[in-house]
Amino acid sequence: MSSGNRPITIAVDAMGGDHAPREVIKGAVEAARKDPEIRIMLIGPSTAIKEELLKINAVELDIPCIHTDEFIKEGEPPALALRQKRNATILIATKLVQKGEADAVVSAGPTGAVVASAMMILGMAEGMERPAVGGPILGFSPKTVVMDFGGNVDCKSFQLLSFAVVGCVYSQRLLGISNPTVALLSVGSEEGKGNELIKECFPLFKRSGLNFVGNVEGNDIVTGKADVIICDGFVGNILLKFLEGLGGAMSQWLKSSLAGKLTDDEIAKLRYDLLSKTVGADLVGAAPLLGVNGVAMVMHGRSHAAEFRNALVQTKNVIKSGLVNVVNTELKAMADKMKLDKN
Amino acid sequence: MSSGNRPITIAVDAMGGDHAPREVIKGAVEAARKDPEIRIMLIGPSTAIKEELLKINAVELDIPCIHTDEFIKEGEPPALALRQKRNATILIATKLVQKGEADAVVSAGPTGAVVASAMMILGMAEGMERPAVGGPILGFSPKTVVMDFGGNVDCKSFQLLSFAVVGCVYSQRLLGISNPTVALLSVGSEEGKGNELIKECFPLFKRSGLNFVGNVEGNDIVTGKADVIICDGFVGNILLKFLEGLGGAMSQWLKSSLAGKLTDDEIAKLRYDLLSKTVGADLVGAAPLLGVNGVAMVMHGRSHAAEFRNALVQTKNVIKSGLVNVVNTELKAMADKMKLDKN
Repeated sequence: MSSGNRPITIAVDAMGGDHAPREVIKGAVEAARKDPEIRIMLIGPSTAIKEELLKINAVELDIPCIHTDEFIKEGEPPALALRQKRNATILIATKLVQKGEADAVVSAGPTGAVVASAMMILGMAEGMERPAVGGPILGFSPKTVVMDFGGNVDCKSFQLLSFAVVGCVYSQRLLGISNPTVALLSVGSEEGKGNELIKECFPLFKRSGLNFVGNVEGNDIVTGKADVIICDGFVGNILLKFLEGLGGAMSQWLKSSLAGKLTDDEIAKLRYDLLSKTVGADLVGAAPLLGVNGVAMVMHGRSHAAEFRNALVQTKNVIKSGLVNVVNTELKAMADKMKLDKN
Repeated sequence: MSSGNRPITIAVDAMGGDHAPREVIKGAVEAARKDPEIRIMLIGPSTAIKEELLKINAVELDIPCIHTDEFIKEGEPPALALRQKRNATILIATKLVQKGEADAVVSAGPTGAVVASAMMILGMAEGMERPAVGGPILGFSPKTVVMDFGGNVDCKSFQLLSFAVVGCVYSQRLLGISNPTVALLSVGSEEGKGNELIKECFPLFKRSGLNFVGNVEGNDIVTGKADVIICDGFVGNILLKFLEGLGGAMSQWLKSSLAGKLTDDEIAKLRYDLLSKTVGADLVGAAPLLGVNGVAMVMHGRSHAAEFRNALVQTKNVIKSGLVNVVNTELKAMADKMKLDKN
């Protein structure tokens, strides 16, 4: 973990994402140029990296590069690919964090591979089986954390409780909410409404010591009825992608509906504003894998330079907030409390 | 079931919904006035009904009223309430369908009570535990049926298969698609992606004889990647309510963003258009409970006269399409096929 004024070192997977390496390197260098606290390391094929650095006159910056030709492509089965490519960019970058040579790893490569590398190399906190991913998903409710989107598809009740612990730390550390309210995403607000998992969670959440306010429904995400809204990764992923699709369709609709009525600039501004309303600001950049023993940030494969720049700033904030350490301490405390409750 | 030119009789729960009885009666009478094929029966307190009919000069229409003072309120536990109120409007209206005195029942009362009445009085088709509810949810993909929203929260794989059968009949009969493609809503398109339920469904759907095209993701609802997209009622309900909340927030955003830039009329037109894009046309009116032995239509509690008018037209279409009979025949055929497959 980084402290005070020491620069923050971020290991960047130069081959992660649809527009790698160009957009990755462009965005990372922009972040490093803009923010003297951010120091980047680029992991990928040295020739390609140097070429890109040359193009943007960044050779003089003396950015450390770690050479490897191997990387994981979208669509490869992550576990198998990682076994076959021992020198994949994401593995090398994550190892830098494990060895303390970097404070964080950032990658827009396949999420499955980033998650698997983090689990394998950094390890998981007590009480977590897979990393949780979450954050504000809507500009309409920018301080409401929804969790999990991290691929935890078949969850037990204690896992949802772990997400709640993680979500509360996120809410406190990154959004400045001191005593966040926590709710379960369900099909009705009364206790007893929901599927088996939610019904099992309800009493567990009640005696957890969290500021639990009961169930909320789908529309309550939009109004931000609770600070932290918990669902399993199956529901979360479907919601997030539905929203993504909807945001795109709305933006197109806006463009064609307003054509000729407003100027192109006005329309572009409205479309940008709409995007920020339908896609949570934090998720536009990078999201931390939570419950991992180290800072690993996942990004959307479609990211461009601007997103990489934002992602590195977001990564710096995550590191400085101490989020990951606090998450792990709180997870341990909850696990202990629940064990004590049982005895 | 109604045939050819005989008028269609619809039993209307005059006390169902937030704006009952006024808006219910107003909308129902408008539908009957506009469409000579539609004959309505109003079930509720006769004095209140007559008062409303007087207000809209509809006494001369000689609309049959069936008097009862009892009705189920939002928030009452449906099963208990139905046991205590033997003469509740929804029970009397549903019994008219069972006795063949009406072709359908329509209610904007609590969905749980409408569902429970239909299950109890009309009974369920083979292979269905609870009625399925679904239809197009987005104006962006107006021919894509999403199912279930009917409160089937903990589903087995055969239930999801039943929803698929039901969804296909809906797609054929109400949307005119001859060989609808069917997909499972999941977190990735490959076989093996998803939670346990989806993984169990995949091979079952494959050998079902349906036009199964595999898994789709949340964004694929927006683009209409399949004609029939299947999820359990937990996911479906959350999606639908999320969309409802989002549509409202977007509409507000549009209003404030365009204020002063366009005329009030232009803004109102855009907001209406946006609403039709984010809320499926069919669900604005009424949705049939599918897998029930009779036509029972549920409506949103917030419905006003215009929605009731649309709902009655939609109900007429459902009756004339023979949807409910075909659904039940197809459900039986699938149940038989699957039994045969097992042996």
